[in-house]
Amino acid sequence: MSRRRRIYDGKAKTMFEGPEPGTLIQYFKDDATAFNAQKREILSGKGVLNNRISAYLMTKLADIGVPTAFIRRLNMREQLVREVEIIPIEVVIRNVAAGSFTKRFAVPEGTPLERSVIEYFYKKDELNDPMVSEEHITAFKWATPHELDEMVALTVRVNDFLTGLFLGIGIKLIDFKLEFGRIWIEDDMHIVLADEISPDNCRLWDLKTNEKLDKDRFRQDLGNVVESYSEVARRLGIMPEEGLSEGPTLVSSTEGTS
Amino acid sequence: MSRRRRIYDGKAKTMFEGPEPGTLIQYFKDDATAFNAQKREILSGKGVLNNRISAYLMTKLADIGVPTAFIRRLNMREQLVREVEIIPIEVVIRNVAAGSFTKRFAVPEGTPLERSVIEYFYKKDELNDPMVSEEHITAFKWATPHELDEMVALTVRVNDFLTGLFLGIGIKLIDFKLEFGRIWIEDDMHIVLADEISPDNCRLWDLKTNEKLDKDRFRQDLGNVVESYSEVARRLGIMPEEGLSEGPTLVSSTEGTS
Repeated sequence: MSRRRRIYDGKAKTMFEGPEPGTLIQYFKDDATAFNAQKREILSGKGVLNNRISAYLMTKLADIGVPTAFIRRLNMREQLVREVEIIPIEVVIRNVAAGSFTKRFAVPEGTPLERSVIEYFYKKDELNDPMVSEEHITAFKWATPHELDEMVALTVRVNDFLTGLFLGIGIKLIDFKLEFGRIWIEDDMHIVLADEISPDNCRLWDLKTNEKLDKDRFRQDLGNVVESYSEVARRLGIMPEEGLSEGPTLVSSTEGTS
Repeated sequence: MSRRRRIYDGKAKTMFEGPEPGTLIQYFKDDATAFNAQKREILSGKGVLNNRISAYLMTKLADIGVPTAFIRRLNMREQLVREVEIIPIEVVIRNVAAGSFTKRFAVPEGTPLERSVIEYFYKKDELNDPMVSEEHITAFKWATPHELDEMVALTVRVNDFLTGLFLGIGIKLIDFKLEFGRIWIEDDMHIVLADEISPDNCRLWDLKTNEKLDKDRFRQDLGNVVESYSEVARRLGIMPEEGLSEGPTLVSSTEGTS
């Protein structure tokens, strides 16, 4: 891994040069950060779980026809993805009030929204990822109106599918964040879903108890962060059989012989 | 029940006058029919299960903003619905080849479709519900182009949501049929989802074994029809606690006293 060229080192993931032109390797770290990286911690096993959860969700979204940058999971911490030109916008869709929305609009956490609300944030750490409108996005040419329409249509589809999927496993999908990128196939530009979908960027509450099963456990010091991510993976039926550590599998002496 | 005015007696459901103007009571029968009613049987308990399953799915679809005629479940076999002007079109959406599609296009059953395919059938028993195109629908004025656009957009949303929901409970959503109706709110006409969504009009296969859990068990004489519908209800977490019979609940002598 160390011999590969590092393209970009993010807060929770590192991108390396891929084996073929137009591909990258997305490596999931155990680093957790919040409040623009003012709060930091290492959560052992988080990267393994997010790699697994995101690979599963991206595969199922591709199955229903949502184009994604995901190609395949390579190992416990890495996945092969297409190289895309990232659109510097975080698209957030909210079904229930939580997080910054509750403060901005003085709506109590947990209030179901009459209809799902989409918000955009400009990805710029130095500016603290400010909320922006369609006007800013098109005026600054971060995306064209046509690209933005496509991003919104895909976000609504992802929300419908994931709301159903999580409901089926007893989890309420409160909100989540998506990122998109551009790829060119011959001369045609396509918008594809990029980055990851995991408890790092979804709010997931247990349907019956409203227990938080996502990164808010880290943001709000609720404890059991990795245990909650594991619970999401377990309900999705994708809990890593080999566990969360990457050490060599121990073979017991009784099994290893004969 | 016998004192209420019967509005329409269908193959699997009867519609009665509702308690208020603009409402109807939808009664779920145990009658199963196939091949335009050439094959008939009574499947004891099917109506109770379909009432429960359809009420659950319609409620969850309303939660994500899909307008429906469903108001609430009244009892084991009945639900209160809005009176709509039914559009005489069955909208079928297919994710995997099955049923008549396999014969029409010589595609083996179980073949995943590159993208979901929508088909329309004109609801007319005397004509054997013929397949029609958008041309027929708009030329015969069964629906306007605008109404048809709305029906297709809603069908895609329902498919995304239900595909996710069933995946979460280990079931593949192969295809299903929807019906739509018009309601007027003041002077505005709205298209709403009507009829029912149940194993009578969805093809549902177990994700691991491909075992059929839907009306094909009846059509193809596979047996265990009601048991399979029960399995769907059980996985959705809505299996009637009181069982499938409508007899008075027996109170054991030890519980009934003191």
